[in-house]
Amino acid sequence: MSVRDGVGPTADHDPAVGELRRMLRADQVLTDAVSLDAYAHDDAEWAAFEPPLAVVLAEREQDVSAVVRLAAASGLRVVPRGAGTGLSGGANAMARSIVVSLERMPRIVEVNAAERYVVAEAGVINDTLREVVAGHGLWYPPDPASYRISTIGGNVATNAGGICCVKYGVTRDYVLGLRVVLADGDAVALGRRTAKGVTGYDLTALMVGSEGTLGIVTEVTLQLLPLGGREERAVVGSFASLRAAGVAVAGIAAAGIVPSALELIDRTCVDAVDAWQGLGLPHGVDTMLLAKVDEVGAVGAELAASVARIMADAGAVSVESAVDADEVDRLFLARRLAYPALERLGPVLTEDICVPRGAVPEMLTRIQATAREHDVVIANIAHAGDGNLHPLIIAPEGDEAAKGRAKLAFDRIVDECRELGGTVTGEHGVGLLKLPGAREELGPRVIDLHVAVKRALDPLGTLNPGKAFPA
Amino acid sequence: MSVRDGVGPTADHDPAVGELRRMLRADQVLTDAVSLDAYAHDDAEWAAFEPPLAVVLAEREQDVSAVVRLAAASGLRVVPRGAGTGLSGGANAMARSIVVSLERMPRIVEVNAAERYVVAEAGVINDTLREVVAGHGLWYPPDPASYRISTIGGNVATNAGGICCVKYGVTRDYVLGLRVVLADGDAVALGRRTAKGVTGYDLTALMVGSEGTLGIVTEVTLQLLPLGGREERAVVGSFASLRAAGVAVAGIAAAGIVPSALELIDRTCVDAVDAWQGLGLPHGVDTMLLAKVDEVGAVGAELAASVARIMADAGAVSVESAVDADEVDRLFLARRLAYPALERLGPVLTEDICVPRGAVPEMLTRIQATAREHDVVIANIAHAGDGNLHPLIIAPEGDEAAKGRAKLAFDRIVDECRELGGTVTGEHGVGLLKLPGAREELGPRVIDLHVAVKRALDPLGTLNPGKAFPA
Repeated sequence: MSVRDGVGPTADHDPAVGELRRMLRADQVLTDAVSLDAYAHDDAEWAAFEPPLAVVLAEREQDVSAVVRLAAASGLRVVPRGAGTGLSGGANAMARSIVVSLERMPRIVEVNAAERYVVAEAGVINDTLREVVAGHGLWYPPDPASYRISTIGGNVATNAGGICCVKYGVTRDYVLGLRVVLADGDAVALGRRTAKGVTGYDLTALMVGSEGTLGIVTEVTLQLLPLGGREERAVVGSFASLRAAGVAVAGIAAAGIVPSALELIDRTCVDAVDAWQGLGLPHGVDTMLLAKVDEVGAVGAELAASVARIMADAGAVSVESAVDADEVDRLFLARRLAYPALERLGPVLTEDICVPRGAVPEMLTRIQATAREHDVVIANIAHAGDGNLHPLIIAPEGDEAAKGRAKLAFDRIVDECRELGGTVTGEHGVGLLKLPGAREELGPRVIDLHVAVKRALDPLGTLNPGKAFPA
Repeated sequence: MSVRDGVGPTADHDPAVGELRRMLRADQVLTDAVSLDAYAHDDAEWAAFEPPLAVVLAEREQDVSAVVRLAAASGLRVVPRGAGTGLSGGANAMARSIVVSLERMPRIVEVNAAERYVVAEAGVINDTLREVVAGHGLWYPPDPASYRISTIGGNVATNAGGICCVKYGVTRDYVLGLRVVLADGDAVALGRRTAKGVTGYDLTALMVGSEGTLGIVTEVTLQLLPLGGREERAVVGSFASLRAAGVAVAGIAAAGIVPSALELIDRTCVDAVDAWQGLGLPHGVDTMLLAKVDEVGAVGAELAASVARIMADAGAVSVESAVDADEVDRLFLARRLAYPALERLGPVLTEDICVPRGAVPEMLTRIQATAREHDVVIANIAHAGDGNLHPLIIAPEGDEAAKGRAKLAFDRIVDECRELGGTVTGEHGVGLLKLPGAREELGPRVIDLHVAVKRALDPLGTLNPGKAFPA
């Protein structure tokens, strides 16, 4: 497959493209080189892609069905796409494919406060959904870093996580039901709108995280929590060593505390943020641990005090606490700025491994060693509370040698995560980047099961083939 | 298929049974009439069954694999079974079947306090697992009514619910990973032990609730919560009408309160309990609403007071509150005794519908009308907080006419649940009893998907065929 820059000639002469133009309005079918380039890949660095034959901007479920039917009849592939913020290449186009973007399906269909659910089209932005349901006194917890720009359909397709998952779970934990366009173009409703239900197989859960390889999600029904009843307190500790921060993480777990956030950033992040924004972060800091608890009143205050004490006992150089919302935001500023600060240093390959909580310090130590050995810059942002690490591998633009070393480091990290009992992707998905790691992790017999399920639901291989699992 | 009493001749002459005897120890293969009868069905009233050819008491995963391999080679069917406490006929035997009981696989393999998970063989009793993990400061929430006698493997196979689900979710929400014997006898590990993970399809979730039709669960990895940090308070209101209780349920939801239990029992239950135990329950009571909250300290006290106020405002005849553990138990006594009290009146067919929370009063009103119209006794126990209703249809032993009327009432209730936007099974599973309702609910295209998945994973139809979905 081709590299990121440059697309091939447009394919306006393909009879399927002509058929698309007959079925849809002119502005729904894009075949110009700029569009084909823009829609050819997601945000994964270094994942392969090819320009699609066309990009379809679906505006309703029937549009999706029509494209899938045409593709199935013409031997083409369909690549569904939300906002293209994926980090594993799951939305990357391939030869003889049509990219179907759901971005023009941004309607909130229903908010039901009494039953605490929302029905939303796939193209609704996560943050928009959060705002709309908040207006009804409801809360949708999953908060991937992309929440301001990613779509709920993409969140479902990748089973997106986020910072609050350590206490509130991931996207899958909130999906009650789906509308899905199947590989033959038929649309079905899966799941339910009631609080409980066990009728038939959990095909809803099977679709969640399947990266559009079994069906294209057009509408999502999400259960919600009440908005109130929480009160955020932040506790941020700065540590002179990774190991000390690891002791604090283990101590919080051992105390039976489930924080609503427990993030870790390493010295490379801290330095990059300070160099950029001059926040005056503490000197001699190797690792910052950023926790939140959200219990109300005296209970919350007591938990925050416990977290602060555990951090101090673990040897924190400094511990700051806050309950005022602005102060909480200020304390988490370094975490929020870490990614953009690092992106200034060059293209960032975002790793996404998940190890047992207790193995976080060991894994981070190994990552540091790998960075040294391979002479690459690796910064670490981690959802430390659930063991989900995002080593950010940075290779300066155009430095092919550095890129080669970075790739070796990437493979090494995946291998070591497996050695420590981890999984190769905690929340970003397999896409294309994690296919080799997934092959190791799943093993041949479980891959057989994937192949069997894929063939059962998509016998022609129309839907996003080659993604999500190694065939 | 035959009725509950009497089994056919044993099948010791079947060559497959001879082969079982060669593969396993003598005490692992039961073919006597008493055993075949005892293992031929679960606790579902009126679900059809036939005596199996043999019952195998598996002691390790390899035993399960061996039986499945033999069955696949011999054209037999395998019916997996935990404790046989199912209420839908999911474990009922059929012609030319081998029942594989997992009861001799009761080992807790690992409790990991740091990572908050437990690994247990399928035959571990729910309550045993709860006790063992409590010893490590951990809590496994799902609490089906059968928790003292049902196995964790059966809980997983049916995606069992319980009283605490209204706040803490169902079995599926705790299953991190499984070991499963597939239809060809191969055993695989699915899922993970890390807090998060999205490698490949969520085959773990596909297996949960699939009633042994896609694989036989031999080992379960469950994530756990910390044991501490909760403080139970009970608030019990007695209402002169169902509608008043319904107003209270809606009021609790509208206040953004998520109770840790919100149970409802109707006049028939209250009367049956009082007639049996003489608890002196309040006079003029039509409906009792039993709530728990479990927040700690002042927050919990305030929430309990809010619940009590909402009940009083809805017109409760009396409201009692308790925080002392014994008092909490006393207030919930009527709920706990309801089922055994009703069983004294005759065989109980336990219905299991789930409607939107707001439709609970309307559904209960319709059930009462159905009971009158069909001249049957129907008592109601409901997980009111999540809309999961258990109408208990009682026909006196041997009264065939009453049984006929009860069956009509059953069908009517399922139809009306669907009219109100409900699902035909909230937590018991489709088994055999809910096959007709599931056909209506799923529709032909989604049933096709079930058939495709079943064929993909069990092409010979070896594993518990005819259950879980209507083919």
